[in-house]
Amino acid sequence: MQCLTNSVVTTITANVLLAAGAAPAMVDNVHEAAQFAKIASAVLVNVGTLDDDRARAMLLAAESAHGHGTPWVLDPVAVGGLEFRTRVARELLEFAPDVVRGNASEILGLAGVGSGGRGVDSTAGAEEAVEAARELSRRTGGAVAVSGVVDLIVRGDDTVRVSGGDELLTRTTGAGCSLGALVAAYCAVADDPLLAAVAAHAHVAEAAERAAVQAKRPGSFVVSWVDELDAADLRDAGRIS
Amino acid sequence: MQCLTNSVVTTITANVLLAAGAAPAMVDNVHEAAQFAKIASAVLVNVGTLDDDRARAMLLAAESAHGHGTPWVLDPVAVGGLEFRTRVARELLEFAPDVVRGNASEILGLAGVGSGGRGVDSTAGAEEAVEAARELSRRTGGAVAVSGVVDLIVRGDDTVRVSGGDELLTRTTGAGCSLGALVAAYCAVADDPLLAAVAAHAHVAEAAERAAVQAKRPGSFVVSWVDELDAADLRDAGRIS
Amino acid sequence: MQCLTNSVVTTITANVLLAAGAAPAMVDNVHEAAQFAKIASAVLVNVGTLDDDRARAMLLAAESAHGHGTPWVLDPVAVGGLEFRTRVARELLEFAPDVVRGNASEILGLAGVGSGGRGVDSTAGAEEAVEAARELSRRTGGAVAVSGVVDLIVRGDDTVRVSGGDELLTRTTGAGCSLGALVAAYCAVADDPLLAAVAAHAHVAEAAERAAVQAKRPGSFVVSWVDELDAADLRDAGRIS
Repeated sequence: MQCLTNSVVTTITANVLLAAGAAPAMVDNVHEAAQFAKIASAVLVNVGTLDDDRARAMLLAAESAHGHGTPWVLDPVAVGGLEFRTRVARELLEFAPDVVRGNASEILGLAGVGSGGRGVDSTAGAEEAVEAARELSRRTGGAVAVSGVVDLIVRGDDTVRVSGGDELLTRTTGAGCSLGALVAAYCAVADDPLLAAVAAHAHVAEAAERAAVQAKRPGSFVVSWVDELDAADLRDAGRIS
Repeated sequence: MQCLTNSVVTTITANVLLAAGAAPAMVDNVHEAAQFAKIASAVLVNVGTLDDDRARAMLLAAESAHGHGTPWVLDPVAVGGLEFRTRVARELLEFAPDVVRGNASEILGLAGVGSGGRGVDSTAGAEEAVEAARELSRRTGGAVAVSGVVDLIVRGDDTVRVSGGDELLTRTTGAGCSLGALVAAYCAVADDPLLAAVAAHAHVAEAAERAAVQAKRPGSFVVSWVDELDAADLRDAGRIS
Repeated sequence: MQCLTNSVVTTITANVLLAAGAAPAMVDNVHEAAQFAKIASAVLVNVGTLDDDRARAMLLAAESAHGHGTPWVLDPVAVGGLEFRTRVARELLEFAPDVVRGNASEILGLAGVGSGGRGVDSTAGAEEAVEAARELSRRTGGAVAVSGVVDLIVRGDDTVRVSGGDELLTRTTGAGCSLGALVAAYCAVADDPLLAAVAAHAHVAEAAERAAVQAKRPGSFVVSWVDELDAADLRDAGRIS
């Protein structure tokens, strides 16, 4: 699957996908983004570190994915407070992502409610973003996932909550961004974006709980978390391939 | 805090900051750099992998930080021998960084003394750069930290030395760059840049010594080092938030 | 040594080189690439995440390396199926890399045989690419390495096979890309590119086998692998410096 993601999390994103059984390809330039989105099994677009060229490549990839029926996921990192990425994310939204995944501040920011967080941290709880998520879901026709202590995933009037995980996920960089990529990987094998999003959130949460049994600090936690994402029972349950 | 850093060390820098209790945001494009530097608690500018757009974004961020009173740190990676980055780093210096942090070759190179190292390795010892550091400190009014076996931190006529750490810090990528970021994080909570720089260097050195007790090779060392940066007594001492 | 590589693998590449005793410098912008290639001990060019500027920088670095006798290695990631990078990789080939390293699909794609894989995974076995590798070797005068379950390394009519390693190398991002960098590091100290390539492949394979004894899953495997790359007997055998 194709990832156009931010420069901080490329490595962990690729490793999370590989551990879960998916095959990442970071094809994110303006010359190749659309070509690859046509043949990719799924596409992730994460606006965490945008520049003009990358923004163009993301718009081309999203348009191509939308046009060719490739499922794709939008991760609106830090959208709301920063004008450039907020404008780009709203343009991306026109290409109807199968899933939007963000924290509450980002979902509120993308929907045009509230001013968003400062950077990547949410200043709101997931439940505060439920109406914004529902509104975005109506616009795209897809699912919208709001990450939090309890994750909230909606599509139209449907709502699923996923609990579990571990606070250490917030103490290592790229856990949320990797989750967005894993949602896209699940979209490649599940027809239903809501189901794909739920499966990815559950996979990440279960692996985090297992990792936290062995590792109590962020450096060793992320090592164990990647190990546990690879656990046979989780990968088989997901059937990503 | 905002990081504009090089593409090799984004992940470890973010993980070091998170472990130490800070909240990194890698906002480094020309459209958002100045806007974010105005509201950030501190800014790191590291010129390790420059291109034209990133150089512009760094100048905009430094100007904004300087204008709005946001403390900021300059890390002049490999400055001295390479003309492009040396020119950019000297332009950045005009915006009076609260702290400059580099190895001896880089500090000599930035001050215009000597030809600098070849790449990121210093070909000089920290003590050789003491006069260059003092000269830079007089120009900026801030502190200048020279990393080495014994770290040397000066401001005007004041000098502090921090010993400790472990040689394995030089065998894993991004330890020095992450230290620069941590200096910025401490600047966000300490009024005195000299004190902030000393605290960050001591935090890194102490965590490295603890890590080296458990891990003797570079792969496992960096995992333990991030774990130890998170140690409660170190974080509480630092009171970064 | 100088690395111009893709944005997904910068960190692991630097850490692999450091563990093996080499000194990486990621100098990959258009202003500095040629200047540094002149003084570097070796150069790696990996086209995994290209944009226009990076492609220009790579061509400048390869031209400078070729002109100044600096050994250099080309890693044609995902070449074959994607037009932009395939064109750039063929232009780079004109500067006669001392070693080309890729998987079978990439070697076939670079040689103009077959359509290449989809992304970074090979859809062909190493032996299927032996004639393509030989043809590329005749064009460049250097060695060509095809990574696979058994690695195949050719120069002209000579052929060396390296077996060993572990399947977990394919489950963590950047193992192949780091191997390409290590080939360049060995080229800096061995006059014979074939020998350098064989030594690097053997170093990686042996370290992977040792790591797999301790670590059975991808997160902990990569940590152990970097540790084992640093093993004294392997580093001394390689005498990289």
